Amino acid sequence: MGGGEPPQQILLHIHKYKYEFHVIIVGHCTKVPRNSNLEKLRSGYLFPEISRHESEHLQKNPDASLIRLGIGDTTQPIPDTITLAMAEQVRGLSTIQGYRGYGAEQGNMALRKAIAGKFYQDMGIKANEIFVSDGAQCDISRLQMLLGSNVTVAVQDPSFPAYIDSSVVVGQAGELEEKTGKYGNIIYMNCGPENDFFPDLSTIPRTDIIFLCSPNNPTGHAASWQQLKQLVEFAEANGSIIVHDSAYAAYIRDGSPRSIFAIPGAKEVGLSLQVAIEISSFSKFAGFTGVRLGWTVVPEELLYSNGFPVIKDFNRIVCTCFNGASNIAQAGGLACLSTDGYHDLCKVIDYYMENAKILVDGFTSLGWKVYGGKNAPYIWVHFPGMSSWNVFAEILKKTNIVTVPGRGFGAAGEEYIRVSAFGQRQNILEAIRRLNSFL
Amino acid sequence: MGGGEPPQQILLHIHKYKYEFHVIIVGHCTKVPRNSNLEKLRSGYLFPEISRHESEHLQKNPDASLIRLGIGDTTQPIPDTITLAMAEQVRGLSTIQGYRGYGAEQGNMALRKAIAGKFYQDMGIKANEIFVSDGAQCDISRLQMLLGSNVTVAVQDPSFPAYIDSSVVVGQAGELEEKTGKYGNIIYMNCGPENDFFPDLSTIPRTDIIFLCSPNNPTGHAASWQQLKQLVEFAEANGSIIVHDSAYAAYIRDGSPRSIFAIPGAKEVGLSLQVAIEISSFSKFAGFTGVRLGWTVVPEELLYSNGFPVIKDFNRIVCTCFNGASNIAQAGGLACLSTDGYHDLCKVIDYYMENAKILVDGFTSLGWKVYGGKNAPYIWVHFPGMSSWNVFAEILKKTNIVTVPGRGFGAAGEEYIRVSAFGQRQNILEAIRRLNSFL
Repeated sequence: MGGGEPPQQILLHIHKYKYEFHVIIVGHCTKVPRNSNLEKLRSGYLFPEISRHESEHLQKNPDASLIRLGIGDTTQPIPDTITLAMAEQVRGLSTIQGYRGYGAEQGNMALRKAIAGKFYQDMGIKANEIFVSDGAQCDISRLQMLLGSNVTVAVQDPSFPAYIDSSVVVGQAGELEEKTGKYGNIIYMNCGPENDFFPDLSTIPRTDIIFLCSPNNPTGHAASWQQLKQLVEFAEANGSIIVHDSAYAAYIRDGSPRSIFAIPGAKEVGLSLQVAIEISSFSKFAGFTGVRLGWTVVPEELLYSNGFPVIKDFNRIVCTCFNGASNIAQAGGLACLSTDGYHDLCKVIDYYMENAKILVDGFTSLGWKVYGGKNAPYIWVHFPGMSSWNVFAEILKKTNIVTVPGRGFGAAGEEYIRVSAFGQRQNILEAIRRLNSFL
Repeated sequence: MGGGEPPQQILLHIHKYKYEFHVIIVGHCTKVPRNSNLEKLRSGYLFPEISRHESEHLQKNPDASLIRLGIGDTTQPIPDTITLAMAEQVRGLSTIQGYRGYGAEQGNMALRKAIAGKFYQDMGIKANEIFVSDGAQCDISRLQMLLGSNVTVAVQDPSFPAYIDSSVVVGQAGELEEKTGKYGNIIYMNCGPENDFFPDLSTIPRTDIIFLCSPNNPTGHAASWQQLKQLVEFAEANGSIIVHDSAYAAYIRDGSPRSIFAIPGAKEVGLSLQVAIEISSFSKFAGFTGVRLGWTVVPEELLYSNGFPVIKDFNRIVCTCFNGASNIAQAGGLACLSTDGYHDLCKVIDYYMENAKILVDGFTSLGWKVYGGKNAPYIWVHFPGMSSWNVFAEILKKTNIVTVPGRGFGAAGEEYIRVSAFGQRQNILEAIRRLNSFL
């Protein structure tokens, strides 16, 4: 019995794919079918795409001094208090007393208590409802595995690509419509200046799941108390679950809610506990993008339509598909929530927010309409009538500054670019100088 | 519009589930359907179940001095060379020069090169085919997300529960048959003394995917050159993909292959590159069960039936659902593969294998038939005609030793218990003393 398809057919496929893959594959085909969900997925994840453009630019201009305000990656050192705690944990692993093997799948209880105490005081969230993770992006996928293919979802447009991409991977989405760049079966909730960057819920059909990121990546908009309250009531009326991503909550400056669970119930105390899950992260809060630590809150009161508690299934997913975050990262997380650690981190966040102000002022003085940057480390700049990929390319070519084309976050991101406020101050100032000279 | 089902129905469900969940849930049901794949999943993941038995035993016997030879968790300190390298990386994160944010999703290139060089020399595996992960269990799930619901799978019986459980989660399995404890649509490949603990391939129907763990957890059997060669030829003839789990390869003592890619092609060089994926881990090799680091190899030559390269989809999954392993753990991984680090780790492995020998000799001298323990840190003890949960309970009750009932690894594990060789020497010797007194 031979293995797979005849060579001729293989060559056809190689021809079809070689432009993406840049190598000619030699090998026999197995008889294993490709996952049709992955076949649907738009080729090229946004950030690797940006990196590719960056590399091509550097190849053409080897002496270019790039300023990277594209992928939202933290740049400032982690405060000493925190790395000292991690180093102590690490070195302890070389001693009989300090050695630790597997931890609890759901995370170290001291850390879970500290998270509940620091971020959810008086909101009715208990430590056993907190799942420590290796980051928000990973937990978005684990939540999608939890939910499965048979739920309907709504997503902000524009939004961080992981919600939709993971939705396609688990089979919730229909076909990709090339013209609009939208998938079937997904409800895109438009968020632009015309609706204060928050979905107009009167136009949104019911879905099982509503993903909401606040402060939003990429628009930088933090939902107000009134907006989140409306959303919680909307979810309750529809029997939906909100998946609230609060990865940038530490950047909120104007008193907007930092957690969905801060929303008081409309008719009873704790309504949000019955309609929401919250995903969050140490990445942007503590510069842990490379250390990898986050958490997810699943309230005990949140039930499926059959009355079964969602928390019980999520615990099962975490035990089956994950084995806990690194114990070193968890020791760091605990130090982040100590009085000294937290204080030091707030100063780093202030630094990035000062960067954000410089960027907002800079683009504004150039005559562009700027959103975001007040409650989030992202600036969302509007270039009316222009293609965002063209603007991205033009800025890169003329100023050697990497941004992100808004189109990469969805159709509603067209005409925008996202500029990240993460960076050394001197680079932010230099970026503004270059933009002043060239735009 | 009201949220969810009427209260009466909720109460019925609460009644049904409260015995598992130990709390009465108060809350309204959403209208979100529970994932039917999770509904199929057998309640209770094995290792939390063992912990529950352990806790109950301690409640009844608060003064019991437990010896834990159950969950296979490493106990020996990590060599200094390795934790010093991690501590240096950690402390560097507090400096401008040493700070690192997001790394490459697929892992640090220096580590990927070191893995290719140390474990895959002369096997045709390149660094770009290595995906650094946060552990083998996590990558099993990501591979299942890659494969999707539309593939057929075969699994060793007995086997580590994560293969089957993740298979159920992504929807590959049929219903659970309570009597046999087996799921529909999954091919169980019996592995016992009658077939030298390796599947009799002449009786196994074709499947898309064949999971094979060698050295096997729980039986401790390392597949021979001849056995793995047969499997590679079987996969080629059937157009199947082997997912080979080599998490315990470092424990092989008798010259059996440590990688599926060591198998030379039957008709051409590198046949295994066209039919296999390999999952592996630093957990048991380097005591990294809590640090979290592993890797997966997906050869470029491995193609789906339509000619599309599997590696390209796996890269997409890793970029979408994962954000790389902790950079601290990766620095540790690199130190593990340095000359000094590797040398020190081999001594730790020798220590565990000396434990294994003591356990094999101990159970043998008690008159029981013992398998494993020669190429793996697990001893697989046969108690003919007895229920493995009863043996487990009896040993716990009489000797305060925690083992794992073989039944937890599948129907073919009935009559067996798994004993882990991870532990302090004095505990292993004390375990044998207790067994001698009581059995």
